[in-house]
Amino acid sequence: MVSMNPAATLKAMREKKPLVHHITNWVTINDCAQVTRHWGALPVMAHAKEEVAEMVGLASALVLNIGTLTMELVDAMVVAARAANKKGIPVVVDPVGAGATKLRTEQAMRLLNECRIDVLKGNAGEISTLAGVKAEVRGVEAISVGGDVAQTAQVLAGRLGNVVAITGATDYVSDGKTVLAVENGHPIMGKVVGTGCMSTSTVGCFVAMGKDYMKLTAEALGCFGLAGELAAAKCEGVGDFTKVFFNEITKMAEKPDSIKLKVKEVKK
Amino acid sequence: MVSMNPAATLKAMREKKPLVHHITNWVTINDCAQVTRHWGALPVMAHAKEEVAEMVGLASALVLNIGTLTMELVDAMVVAARAANKKGIPVVVDPVGAGATKLRTEQAMRLLNECRIDVLKGNAGEISTLAGVKAEVRGVEAISVGGDVAQTAQVLAGRLGNVVAITGATDYVSDGKTVLAVENGHPIMGKVVGTGCMSTSTVGCFVAMGKDYMKLTAEALGCFGLAGELAAAKCEGVGDFTKVFFNEITKMAEKPDSIKLKVKEVKK
Amino acid sequence: MVSMNPAATLKAMREKKPLVHHITNWVTINDCAQVTRHWGALPVMAHAKEEVAEMVGLASALVLNIGTLTMELVDAMVVAARAANKKGIPVVVDPVGAGATKLRTEQAMRLLNECRIDVLKGNAGEISTLAGVKAEVRGVEAISVGGDVAQTAQVLAGRLGNVVAITGATDYVSDGKTVLAVENGHPIMGKVVGTGCMSTSTVGCFVAMGKDYMKLTAEALGCFGLAGELAAAKCEGVGDFTKVFFNEITKMAEKPDSIKLKVKEVKK
Repeated sequence: MVSMNPAATLKAMREKKPLVHHITNWVTINDCAQVTRHWGALPVMAHAKEEVAEMVGLASALVLNIGTLTMELVDAMVVAARAANKKGIPVVVDPVGAGATKLRTEQAMRLLNECRIDVLKGNAGEISTLAGVKAEVRGVEAISVGGDVAQTAQVLAGRLGNVVAITGATDYVSDGKTVLAVENGHPIMGKVVGTGCMSTSTVGCFVAMGKDYMKLTAEALGCFGLAGELAAAKCEGVGDFTKVFFNEITKMAEKPDSIKLKVKEVKK
Repeated sequence: MVSMNPAATLKAMREKKPLVHHITNWVTINDCAQVTRHWGALPVMAHAKEEVAEMVGLASALVLNIGTLTMELVDAMVVAARAANKKGIPVVVDPVGAGATKLRTEQAMRLLNECRIDVLKGNAGEISTLAGVKAEVRGVEAISVGGDVAQTAQVLAGRLGNVVAITGATDYVSDGKTVLAVENGHPIMGKVVGTGCMSTSTVGCFVAMGKDYMKLTAEALGCFGLAGELAAAKCEGVGDFTKVFFNEITKMAEKPDSIKLKVKEVKK
Repeated sequence: MVSMNPAATLKAMREKKPLVHHITNWVTINDCAQVTRHWGALPVMAHAKEEVAEMVGLASALVLNIGTLTMELVDAMVVAARAANKKGIPVVVDPVGAGATKLRTEQAMRLLNECRIDVLKGNAGEISTLAGVKAEVRGVEAISVGGDVAQTAQVLAGRLGNVVAITGATDYVSDGKTVLAVENGHPIMGKVVGTGCMSTSTVGCFVAMGKDYMKLTAEALGCFGLAGELAAAKCEGVGDFTKVFFNEITKMAEKPDSIKLKVKEVKK
């Protein structure tokens, strides 16, 4: 069993205040910055090709999200990711909408081919598409997927030599050998636009804190889901979920000792 | 009298989960995605010229909003709208700021000239400008308009052969023959940035559900205004209006049977 | 002592409804528009190079914020600022992240060199960088600065012949001769993404109302900080701060007579 220690990670994060450089989408860019700040890291959003490599030089992690991609934006992502690879900081990619259009699938593959992506994290439709498993993606939603999701994560992570996370009712995180199942979370999170992108930013914050990316990704998704459970119990609906959620995240980040995550290893 | 049946529309929407493809502005893009989701549809925001036609292929309606236009963005809108015309799905245009600058007026006219726009929806200043009626638009606000607003909607709809909606204290929706007046709504909605754009997205969700665009547009504006009335009665002010509003929309979408709209035909 | 009269400024603002044209960043663009609206001004966000000069023609102030700059966006800023200079309306610049990357420092300097910037407003790291004083900026946060902040504001304002404001626990505003210290505010404001950008927009609203830019900038920062104090006392945390803050701003703008600011002159 991989042992989780989110309290230690969060305490170190508040101490270090790692800069998490994002090149993300215009829909949830504010949410991504807020959630990063509330975990205790520092967000910076910068996408000009002239500055991304230099900004990576100040950062402890790079988060790339293709939700509202253009060719110009993906070009900047490649420059930033190569700088991150050279520096040795983790690169997290959320291939939003891969499978919905050829452009999204191809550009997500381009990021995987032209750079080292340390954590690839998406929903079942997006990741299955990139793994070559049959899937239907409508816009940015997974409608249906073929195959076993845990296995897809493992096979793709083995092939890419990195960490792959597939989020859903249960999240699966694999490094190609082990598969972890994270069972924190709440169904309301699927009804609020932005939770997927915010969970990717959360992964960026956590992997900035060490080298065991599988464990840190599972901690990130577990803490994110747990904050969602706490917020779901207090909010009135989808409209006020996010504000309660941010308050719960801040409380967890400030007093992380009592965090208990539902993470277990998937046995074959 | 045109008979409204928003309950049937909303039930069908939750069943079908139509994808509503937006090319919209950067100010309210998150609000537009959220409101679409909360009515029960699926939003996707995508503006790369390389993918918009393919994304339209998955969609049931296309929403175009020129609030933060660039030439590149309008070029993508034209490609998307032509694909939507070919596929036979409705195209909704919000000509934000038409009348304020030559660029906005010309590019709104370009959309009307180069594509079939099924629903043209804006405030009195914007639509009067496009109808050739004298109007003053300061930024994105209608300061003054000449002429009778209901008549402007009717004349322009007749000329364009589509549906024109002019929003304000009373909303007018016309197909060139009939003019409907929608009297739901609340003054606080004029004080919160984003309500205009969200109402356009709401029209996009509703017209995705059928072919009677005038009726569906009136249902959309009526439901939107009614949710605003309910939220205005519960919120403390402009700051928390939107969160309460989203909760009211979710409740209406989940239990639509009791919805009663104030829509009537304008008699000449 | 410079006498403050925020009540008169806010009453005049609600009467005049000045258009405040922004070219700002994609992270906080919605917050900037909302805060502008809630003070009683009208926001417009427009960045197409083809329209910015014409939009400036309708505006009473121009706000430029380089938070997510590209070369194209700064090019549009220069066109807009020159049109504003020609028209004689104030130009406010927030050099977000100057000092973090060469691009940000250079492009902020370019705005200062190619246009008249009436109010330059940033955090201590950004302004120290532009003043040639040693500073460390990580992303968009000031980590450390050398020298005395009040003096830096004064020296730079003297050199530029304009108003310089440095925000922090205490804000300093100088026209090169006098330095004002504004002590309103609350620490929670540093934990919510967007407060810096919203305070710049607030300065834009206030300087739209007259010619004494130092006094109006101090009033803006004082009112902004005071609304933050009131909101901090009522909100539960970072998640709901902004909504309470917007409600407090609206209340202040509607009933400004009782506003008491903590602004004093810094004596050498």
